[in-house]
Amino acid sequence: MSENVYIADIAKYADKEVQIKGWLYNKRHSGKLWFLQVRDGTGIIQSVVFKGSVSDEVFKNCEELTQESSVTVTGTVSADKRSAIGYEIQVKELEIVSVSEEYPITPKEHGTSFLMDRRHLWLRSSRQHAIISIRHEVIKACRDFFDGRGFTLVDAPVFTPNACEGTSTLFETDYFDTKAFLTQSGQLYMEAGAMAFGKAYCFGPTFRAEKSKTRRHLTEFWMIEPEVAYMDLAGDMDLAENFVEYVVQRVLKNKKSELESLERNLEALQKVIRPFPRISYDEATEILKKAEAEFEYGSDFGGTDETIISEGFDRPVMVHRYPAAIKAFYMKEDPEDTSKALCVDMLAPEGYGEIIGGGQREDDLDILIEKIKKHDLPMEAFNWYLDLRKYGTVPHSGFGMGIERMVSWVCGLSHVRETIPFPRLMHRLSP
Amino acid sequence: MSENVYIADIAKYADKEVQIKGWLYNKRHSGKLWFLQVRDGTGIIQSVVFKGSVSDEVFKNCEELTQESSVTVTGTVSADKRSAIGYEIQVKELEIVSVSEEYPITPKEHGTSFLMDRRHLWLRSSRQHAIISIRHEVIKACRDFFDGRGFTLVDAPVFTPNACEGTSTLFETDYFDTKAFLTQSGQLYMEAGAMAFGKAYCFGPTFRAEKSKTRRHLTEFWMIEPEVAYMDLAGDMDLAENFVEYVVQRVLKNKKSELESLERNLEALQKVIRPFPRISYDEATEILKKAEAEFEYGSDFGGTDETIISEGFDRPVMVHRYPAAIKAFYMKEDPEDTSKALCVDMLAPEGYGEIIGGGQREDDLDILIEKIKKHDLPMEAFNWYLDLRKYGTVPHSGFGMGIERMVSWVCGLSHVRETIPFPRLMHRLSP
Repeated sequence: MSENVYIADIAKYADKEVQIKGWLYNKRHSGKLWFLQVRDGTGIIQSVVFKGSVSDEVFKNCEELTQESSVTVTGTVSADKRSAIGYEIQVKELEIVSVSEEYPITPKEHGTSFLMDRRHLWLRSSRQHAIISIRHEVIKACRDFFDGRGFTLVDAPVFTPNACEGTSTLFETDYFDTKAFLTQSGQLYMEAGAMAFGKAYCFGPTFRAEKSKTRRHLTEFWMIEPEVAYMDLAGDMDLAENFVEYVVQRVLKNKKSELESLERNLEALQKVIRPFPRISYDEATEILKKAEAEFEYGSDFGGTDETIISEGFDRPVMVHRYPAAIKAFYMKEDPEDTSKALCVDMLAPEGYGEIIGGGQREDDLDILIEKIKKHDLPMEAFNWYLDLRKYGTVPHSGFGMGIERMVSWVCGLSHVRETIPFPRLMHRLSP
Repeated sequence: MSENVYIADIAKYADKEVQIKGWLYNKRHSGKLWFLQVRDGTGIIQSVVFKGSVSDEVFKNCEELTQESSVTVTGTVSADKRSAIGYEIQVKELEIVSVSEEYPITPKEHGTSFLMDRRHLWLRSSRQHAIISIRHEVIKACRDFFDGRGFTLVDAPVFTPNACEGTSTLFETDYFDTKAFLTQSGQLYMEAGAMAFGKAYCFGPTFRAEKSKTRRHLTEFWMIEPEVAYMDLAGDMDLAENFVEYVVQRVLKNKKSELESLERNLEALQKVIRPFPRISYDEATEILKKAEAEFEYGSDFGGTDETIISEGFDRPVMVHRYPAAIKAFYMKEDPEDTSKALCVDMLAPEGYGEIIGGGQREDDLDILIEKIKKHDLPMEAFNWYLDLRKYGTVPHSGFGMGIERMVSWVCGLSHVRETIPFPRLMHRLSP
C-alpha cells in the first residue's frame, strides 16, 4: 500500500511509493509523456506519466483531464533538480475523483473584478497561495511576539454600546431592544486590559463604514492592539519598532520562496532593522516644505504626504507629536508643548503609508473629562473608561497595527484587497 | 539603580534589588510591619515594610494606602517558603503613583450583575486573571495545533451577503446601498479554503441573535473551524479527538496553578485522553430511554439529554449520525442509511454539553441542489458555494469549536459569561 502524503512533506518520501490527493493545476504533453502539475493545497508537484508505465486507460485519461479536476495520483517520488520543490512523481496509477468542466480561471490574464467575483476559486492560484500563506505567517509572528513577551490576550468586543466618535463611519445593528455598533478599535478595552494584566493585547476584526475606494481601505480588517501599563511614548516607540522588525524578519526567514514568487524586492525588507528613524511632526512638515508639497501646517498627512516623508528613509519612520487638535481625545498632551499630542504613527517605506498608529494615553481624570467635553462626546458613554483614571491610574501607552496593510507592504502589493481571503469593500460583499 | 521587573520574572532576581510597578491588591498590619500584596498584572507579591527599614513617611503612607492605588515598590527580593510564588520583597522605598478612592470591588462578596457592570475593573481580580489566562492558553493551543499540522489560516469574513438559513438569529446592518449579516459560522468559506489549501482553518468572532438566557449562550463568541479536503467522517472524528486532547492536556501542563486556584478537579481533565467513545445517535437515544428521559426519537438533544448521555463516560463522547432531517442542508447523507447525516457532535463530560459540531459535507452537486430546494433556501445565494462542487469536488469534512464553551468546561465554570473579557449577552452590551 502506498502512503497518503502531502506535497509539503514530499522530501521525506524520496524513492518511496506515495499517493497524492489533489487537483490538476496544469498539464503538458510530449510524445509518450504527460507532465501533470498536481496541487494538493500544500504544494504543486510535477507528476510524470509515461505511456509504458501505466495502463492505456490512465494514459487516455491524461488527455481528457481538465484544469481543477480532482485526482488521486500514485507513484514513486524521485529527486529532480529542475523541480522547484526538488522532486517529481513517476506515476503508476491515476484516478479521477471528479471532472471539472470549464473552470473559469484559466492561465490567461483576467481582470481583478472577474477574479474577485470568483474569489472562492481564485484562492487556488499560486499567487494567492503565496499571499495568504504570508498573511498566516504575519499573524503567527504577531501573536508569538506578544505571547513571548508576557502579554495577555484580552479579546475586545465587536459589539460596542456607544457611537463614541460619531456614527458616520460606524456600522450599526439592532441589538434586541437597543442599538449596537461594530468596533473600530479595541483600544479603550485594552486600556482596561493593561490595568488588569500589565501588558495586554487584542487581535480581531474591526470595521469602518468609510465611503472610501482607495487601495488602502477595507470595510472589515484585522487589527492587533497592544497596551502596556507604566509605559511612556518612548517605550511605545521601542515596542513598535521591535515588533515590526520581528514580524518582517520572520516572514523573510520562513516565507522567502513565497516572497520570491511574488517578485518582492527582498533587500528592501532586509533593511527593516532597528533602530528606525524617529522624527517629530514638525520635522516631517519641514521635509514636505523642502519637497514643495501642498501641505498646510497643522493638518494631518495625506497618503501623498506620507509617501514623500518616508521616501528619505530605507526603513519605517516613526513620526511623533502631531498637533493635539487633529488627534483623538484620549491622547496625552506633551507636557513640554501642550499643543502637541504624545502620539506616534509609523510609516512604512516604499509608499505604503501608515501601518501603526498609537501613543501615550491621557491618564489624568480631570484633563480627560475636560477633553471629552471639548470634543462634545457623551460623558455617560465614558463612565467605565473614566473609572480607569479614578482607580489607580498610571501612565500607559499602546498602538494598533492593521494586518492587511502590513501584509500588503511585506508582499509588495498595489492594493490591500488581495491580503485577506474574502475582502469586504464598499462595493464588494461577496462571495 | 534597581531594575524594573515584572513579578512573573521575580525568581531571576533573588537577593537583588528591584522595582515593581503595580497596584495595591490587599494589605495587613502587624506592629512594626506592613504586608502589602502588590499586583502588577503578571502576578502578586507580598511586599514587607519594616518600620526600621523605611522612612517615617513611607511607613505612614502604608497606613493610608487604599486598594488599587498605583504604587512603585523598591526593595530586595528574598526567598520565602510560605509564599505562593516563593518570593517576597523587603521594601526600601514605596512611591504612591495615584491614590484610588473607594474602589467598588472589595474582598467581600458581590453579586454577578454588580461585577459584570464593572467588568473593566473585575478583570483585575485573581479569579478573573486565572480564567482569562487559561482562555489565552486555550486559544494559543488551538492555533498551535493547526499551525503545527500544515493547516493554513484562511480568515472567514464577518460580513456576509445573505441570510442563508433564516434571519431570526442573525444580526443585520446597513452596508452602503444593501444589507449585510454578521457571520454565524465560517464553514462555507472554509470549504473553499480546504479546496484551495487542502487543510484550512479560521478563527474569529461569530454572532447569534438568540433570545436565549442560558448559561451556555453568548451573542458574540469565538469559534475555530478546521476543514480538510479528502477527509471523511471517521477522519473528522480522529482530528476532533486529537485536537481536544491536545488543548486540554496543554492547559493542564501550562496552567496548572490557575486551574488549582479555580479549584478545578484536575483528575477529570487528566482523563481526557484518546480514544474518546464514539456512539451513534441511535445508541445515544438508547441511553436516554434507559434513563427514562422524556425524549422523542428523531428530535435533537436538549441540554439535559446531553448531560444524561455524557454521564456514562469519563471523557468527551462523540455522537455521530443524527437524523438528516434535523441537520443543516450541507451535511452529507450516510450512504448506508440516507435518513442519517454523516455528522458528529462532541459532548464534554461533567454536564458541559456540546463543544464541537461538525461532519462530512455533501460533495455531490445534484444532491446539494436538491437539498437547497428542499430546505427552501435562495439558490442564487449559493452559486459560489455550488462552484466548489462543479470544479473538482472531493469528499471533505470539518468542525467548529466554540472557545468559550471549551474554556468554561476546562475551568469548571457554571456560566460562559466569565470566559470572555467583555461578554455580550441578550441584556449585556456594556462596558
